Amino acid sequence: MSHQHHDIDVVVVGAGMAGLVCAHRLRQRGVEVLLLEACQQVGGRTVGVEVDSEVVDLGGQFIGPGQDRVYALAEELGVATFPTYTAGTNVLETEAGRLRRFRGMVPKLGPFTLLDVARAQARLDRLARTVDTGAPWRGPNANTFDGQTLQTWIDRTVTTRGGRGFLALACHAIWACEPSELSLLHALFYIKAAGSLSALTDFEGGAQQDRLDGGAYGLAGKLADRLETSLRLNTPVRRIEHDDAGVTVTAEDGTAWRAGHVVVAAAPPLAGRIAYRPALPAARDNLLQRLPMGSVIKCIATYPEPFWRTAGLSGAALSLRGPIALTVDSSPRSGRRGILIGFVTGAAARDLATHSSAARRTILLDSLTRLFGPQASTPLSFVERNWNEQPFTRGAYSAVFPPGAWTQLGSALRAPVGRIHWAGTETSPRWYGYIEGAVRSGEAAADAITPARRGPSGRE
Amino acid sequence: MSHQHHDIDVVVVGAGMAGLVCAHRLRQRGVEVLLLEACQQVGGRTVGVEVDSEVVDLGGQFIGPGQDRVYALAEELGVATFPTYTAGTNVLETEAGRLRRFRGMVPKLGPFTLLDVARAQARLDRLARTVDTGAPWRGPNANTFDGQTLQTWIDRTVTTRGGRGFLALACHAIWACEPSELSLLHALFYIKAAGSLSALTDFEGGAQQDRLDGGAYGLAGKLADRLETSLRLNTPVRRIEHDDAGVTVTAEDGTAWRAGHVVVAAAPPLAGRIAYRPALPAARDNLLQRLPMGSVIKCIATYPEPFWRTAGLSGAALSLRGPIALTVDSSPRSGRRGILIGFVTGAAARDLATHSSAARRTILLDSLTRLFGPQASTPLSFVERNWNEQPFTRGAYSAVFPPGAWTQLGSALRAPVGRIHWAGTETSPRWYGYIEGAVRSGEAAADAITPARRGPSGRE
Repeated sequence: MSHQHHDIDVVVVGAGMAGLVCAHRLRQRGVEVLLLEACQQVGGRTVGVEVDSEVVDLGGQFIGPGQDRVYALAEELGVATFPTYTAGTNVLETEAGRLRRFRGMVPKLGPFTLLDVARAQARLDRLARTVDTGAPWRGPNANTFDGQTLQTWIDRTVTTRGGRGFLALACHAIWACEPSELSLLHALFYIKAAGSLSALTDFEGGAQQDRLDGGAYGLAGKLADRLETSLRLNTPVRRIEHDDAGVTVTAEDGTAWRAGHVVVAAAPPLAGRIAYRPALPAARDNLLQRLPMGSVIKCIATYPEPFWRTAGLSGAALSLRGPIALTVDSSPRSGRRGILIGFVTGAAARDLATHSSAARRTILLDSLTRLFGPQASTPLSFVERNWNEQPFTRGAYSAVFPPGAWTQLGSALRAPVGRIHWAGTETSPRWYGYIEGAVRSGEAAADAITPARRGPSGRE
Repeated sequence: MSHQHHDIDVVVVGAGMAGLVCAHRLRQRGVEVLLLEACQQVGGRTVGVEVDSEVVDLGGQFIGPGQDRVYALAEELGVATFPTYTAGTNVLETEAGRLRRFRGMVPKLGPFTLLDVARAQARLDRLARTVDTGAPWRGPNANTFDGQTLQTWIDRTVTTRGGRGFLALACHAIWACEPSELSLLHALFYIKAAGSLSALTDFEGGAQQDRLDGGAYGLAGKLADRLETSLRLNTPVRRIEHDDAGVTVTAEDGTAWRAGHVVVAAAPPLAGRIAYRPALPAARDNLLQRLPMGSVIKCIATYPEPFWRTAGLSGAALSLRGPIALTVDSSPRSGRRGILIGFVTGAAARDLATHSSAARRTILLDSLTRLFGPQASTPLSFVERNWNEQPFTRGAYSAVFPPGAWTQLGSALRAPVGRIHWAGTETSPRWYGYIEGAVRSGEAAADAITPARRGPSGRE
């Protein structure tokens, strides 16, 4: 690369929330940006589809206290928020298929199990407080925590059978993986990055407290509108050449752009599939070999009305039997329709994916019907999304650190490589795995390239 | 893809030992083959360089009993084998830097430590016998074994501090990673795939028993010679389109070949970086997100003669202090020169890589000098190879399964995806991680496409 001409100041790769926010902020500072997206739509792990004239979220959708940047973004974009419906009682389905109603976040388990779970939760919170989310590989117990799986910790700490089952269910719901796949250190980091375990699991006061009017995808859609011609869809990036003077970003169709910087705002496994020339430093490359995505199928059943509410149910359920591990009332703010969302994660998601579309629908509606009664069996419409089959995401909710990855290679997660910067919820020390983490990471990448200035011009 | 013309019967991607053997066997059966290699030389994780008019192996180099296919290949290609030099005493360096001489495979540790290590080894062998190497995800204890790291097992099983240190050293030497990075199930699978733990660690009777005259790389070189124009170097493959009728394989420069089948014979992380259209099934893709390579720097010091032999030393050493964990006498068969090879693995390799080339040389020669005396400090020549920096290998010796990967997604390791077949040592149920595994996997892929026939024509 001998020519010094820059087509553009910054190329951003990936129009998920991180890339969109990054490009938006750079443009606000007068930086010339090109945002390249592999898919035919923006949003990344937030996706909206219209079902029966209601927009439903196939991906991330909840926000909650402490997620300041996403609330600020919603306000800036004129997207209203409203509380997730939580009135009424929740349901827990036991492994044997019995239903137990409960209020709040603590299901009716036996007293020994309840005590066991409460102790485990308190211990996780206590251990999480020792983790430095900016550098989880530091800290007196980092090697001990990162030398074991969450499964090992559960086996050692939780003494009742019911307690172990409930902890596994929590892992399925929070990380969309099996406890065997997850480093204890990553679980603790993730808890600390949100503040506490209850910040992850709760509706009121937690990460599921609020929803966005018209769907979380509205944020991505409105950002895309503002970017206008700075956004290019259907453009998978295949190669990034980089040197002291700039970067050359080449798309699958051979089109190339020369820029001063590139921000790669793709999920880690996808970021690792771009060809970098020269090759990435060993530590960065080796880290990208180690960060698989969780496994999740989200299903959305739409009914004429939220019939469970009249039966005194909140629509929130947990199931130890599965395959749906977790449901939430996701009806539109208007209440015009009733919408239940269900999450199938980890091994259950991998198993469900082996069935035909028709069989999956039957299995999933059976699961909902056991939880909410016969009315659940005949939705107006039913959609599902297997995030592991999306070619440019290949899993969700987020990348799961296996044992050893944080301590061996974690310092390569966020550090730029020359003029290549990294964004995406996985690079955020706060709210890793959430829309909030993505927003923060996009802002941080923009700030690293062009710090906020007083004047109107941020051009380099 | 509407055209049915096939440029070629089979494209093989990657000219490591697996790809070379696969292409060679297919050609022997009259199948028209094109072997594409990203690098400027064949051999993959076997690489030879001429140093002071001796060919030295920068990569894999040893073979041993039970590795029938590689011995047969050596015979077919006219490459002689000879025993690794093992006469004399071995050296163990303690963490504190003291040297202890020993014979055989058992260093002089304290009696409690020795007993502890012997018990751990016997247990690993016993547990390994329960693993089905064809389907490690089956078996009564698969989930238990795959739910924990090797670190967890060591912490729980080995009671002496010295014993734990020695088991960690064994992990460094065998898997080139930290015990925290490795599923216990993978360790057991790997042991069973070789036969026993001593088959992995031993010289006589084990995987380090013999060497190949002129270097292991000679096998690759001779196979490449036979392939003639069927081999194309400097051709990284970027995209594989596949349908019911065939495959289209596209290189980085845009050249494309239509074929009946493709065999991807690249290390798992590299196989995952090719763009597949349609995208790979979720299980296969998700598995490829989970199989990082080990970390190893191999160094080779050449001396006027094998001076350690006259001092009664074998040249084999283990060091708990490091950074070199393991050395072996790798002098040429002629004995004209003395050559010591050293392995720096796992965290030590990652740490060493942060130093300058000059500093690394100093550190590594200091390490050799502590083990073998002042003569080791002034080699005729000194070369090192950091396998993690090789853009088309990105680690060695082999892919390391973290917890959960075998049980959750292992069944996607070897299964073809339509007309896409997988080869490479990681796909072999016998001698995974060794040259033997690569040879077997190449033969198996060739057999899957074109079973052995009586007649001379294997053309489809």
